[in-house]
Amino acid sequence: MKFLQFIFCCVISLPVYAGQWEALPETPPIPVDNPQTAAKIKLGKTLFFDPRLSSTGTISCNSCHNVMLGGEDNRPVSVGVEGQKGGRSAPTVWNSAFLSVQFWDGRAPTLEAQAKGPVTNPIEMGMKDWDVTMAQLKLIPGYAAMFDAAFLCEQNPMTADNTAKAIAAYERTLITPNSPYDRYVKGDKTALSKQQVSGMKTFAEIGCTACHIGANFSGPPMPMGIGWFLKFPSFVGSEYDEKYRLMADLGRYEATKKEADKHVWRVPTLRNISLTAPYFHNGAVKTLAEAVRVMAKTQLNKNLSNTEVQDIVAFLKGLTGEFPEQTMPRLPASPGTSVIF
Amino acid sequence: MKFLQFIFCCVISLPVYAGQWEALPETPPIPVDNPQTAAKIKLGKTLFFDPRLSSTGTISCNSCHNVMLGGEDNRPVSVGVEGQKGGRSAPTVWNSAFLSVQFWDGRAPTLEAQAKGPVTNPIEMGMKDWDVTMAQLKLIPGYAAMFDAAFLCEQNPMTADNTAKAIAAYERTLITPNSPYDRYVKGDKTALSKQQVSGMKTFAEIGCTACHIGANFSGPPMPMGIGWFLKFPSFVGSEYDEKYRLMADLGRYEATKKEADKHVWRVPTLRNISLTAPYFHNGAVKTLAEAVRVMAKTQLNKNLSNTEVQDIVAFLKGLTGEFPEQTMPRLPASPGTSVIF
Repeated sequence: MKFLQFIFCCVISLPVYAGQWEALPETPPIPVDNPQTAAKIKLGKTLFFDPRLSSTGTISCNSCHNVMLGGEDNRPVSVGVEGQKGGRSAPTVWNSAFLSVQFWDGRAPTLEAQAKGPVTNPIEMGMKDWDVTMAQLKLIPGYAAMFDAAFLCEQNPMTADNTAKAIAAYERTLITPNSPYDRYVKGDKTALSKQQVSGMKTFAEIGCTACHIGANFSGPPMPMGIGWFLKFPSFVGSEYDEKYRLMADLGRYEATKKEADKHVWRVPTLRNISLTAPYFHNGAVKTLAEAVRVMAKTQLNKNLSNTEVQDIVAFLKGLTGEFPEQTMPRLPASPGTSVIF
Repeated sequence: MKFLQFIFCCVISLPVYAGQWEALPETPPIPVDNPQTAAKIKLGKTLFFDPRLSSTGTISCNSCHNVMLGGEDNRPVSVGVEGQKGGRSAPTVWNSAFLSVQFWDGRAPTLEAQAKGPVTNPIEMGMKDWDVTMAQLKLIPGYAAMFDAAFLCEQNPMTADNTAKAIAAYERTLITPNSPYDRYVKGDKTALSKQQVSGMKTFAEIGCTACHIGANFSGPPMPMGIGWFLKFPSFVGSEYDEKYRLMADLGRYEATKKEADKHVWRVPTLRNISLTAPYFHNGAVKTLAEAVRVMAKTQLNKNLSNTEVQDIVAFLKGLTGEFPEQTMPRLPASPGTSVIF
């Protein structure tokens, strides 16, 4: 099944999507069972920035998915509780609402499902389980009213599911519209430089758009929960396999244990990509230029010229959007007693 | 000298300051060599939130002095790079501009001097030295223009001194006015409850105001750089010495190596104290009520009744001010390449 998806991605999509440049919509898909409300978004933002969602009181969602940066931490892999390092590089939270599946291996079908992962991951936020997490949150009096306001009519709204829903609702506001690329696509032909337009052309011609297509450059429109996957490296045997340890992580196989999912990955967004070095699932590649070179070789079996690389990098820099100004949440007070022990 | 300060604090100040209730000024003292400007405050806020000021790219000033909380991290002691724990509890950054010396032991005479400490502390932000820190900051192109704007006319403004100046300028904006106490003192007699007024009276009568006096409850007006110190515990021998390890840390002695400075500490602010559990330099006391009990016993040799404790706690809750809404800084982008190695 996933193998078929991979075939579909590589072979069938190219003629269908190549050349269809799309601007980023202003709003992402919203699931019917989690409508956006101001109270829910406010709660979600508060939770997103609250380090008391971790066992040590030191790691919030924002620690690794830093919205003040490009939505991640500019590290090869992130650092969780007790200084522990994760195995994969933190993906950006900006525009993640446009991804049809979450995590590098697509193992979460929704932002709601994703939000539940890191909190109880022993090397990320380190909470024992969600019962302990909710018990800890309930020690902070201010949250009760916020959950009540966000989940009206619910008897006991302080649940793990609602915590995840609120965080997802906030994340669905993290959209970066009006990049030079978007303005260009909407008709402002001065928005991209000559070099950027040249890079855009090369990007399509050599086949990057076979997979990095759609408004989010992460694949064609897919139903939520259905991923757009690709094998990486597709062309095994280049110098990069060893240089950047590309064969070390089995990717989606780790989640499904299906042979066909070995080295299969969800196609990541390229939006704001120039802000999120280092690159790839293991953060092994330090520069965007090198990332472009590696992708061309391992996915398209092409050796790019320096000019082609520079042009594509210039184009990719044109995918940096406008980050909406945000106010800081006031985290509800610890109740005159410590909640972290 | 410090011993004399201690004597002065305990004996002489009581009649002078007791009963003089002061509201928090809207602006703190500003040093003549570091005037406030919008550009400098903006730079300082950006630096304050930037984890790339640490060796691992994970710890910002805000990690331990969380302005979205009570200005610290609600932990007994903070966690720095590589999961290392510090020896003392992070003091609040809110209203720290009103303190005449910084750190628990008062070893920094200014916020500028304080700001330089944690960055190169191996268990806090872990940078090797300030040369390495500035070299790392210089890799982030966006900072050059921000330093230029903040330090006009300087040839090479990206220095450690200017980094500290900018952070201090931002910290001088972190003021929480208009607490119920402030409104009460300014004439609104309904701002504090009956119990809070009763607690305020007890607070003064039993002698808390001998040291926790002045607008910031951290001592009388002192010239910047001159500390208001006290021995803690002043009355040695209570059960609390062992229970809360009060004799383990030699306090200011660790900075000066002077015999008279053993167990001497800068008097901390009580503003927003109900938000900053757990308490004391080692974070050993979990609740505000117990902190009040311990202080009365160890500093005034008094055993408070439960009513007295509850009243004082109610009064102290009246010291929680208004936290000005803040926008999040956009941290300047890493330059399409990793700056953390």
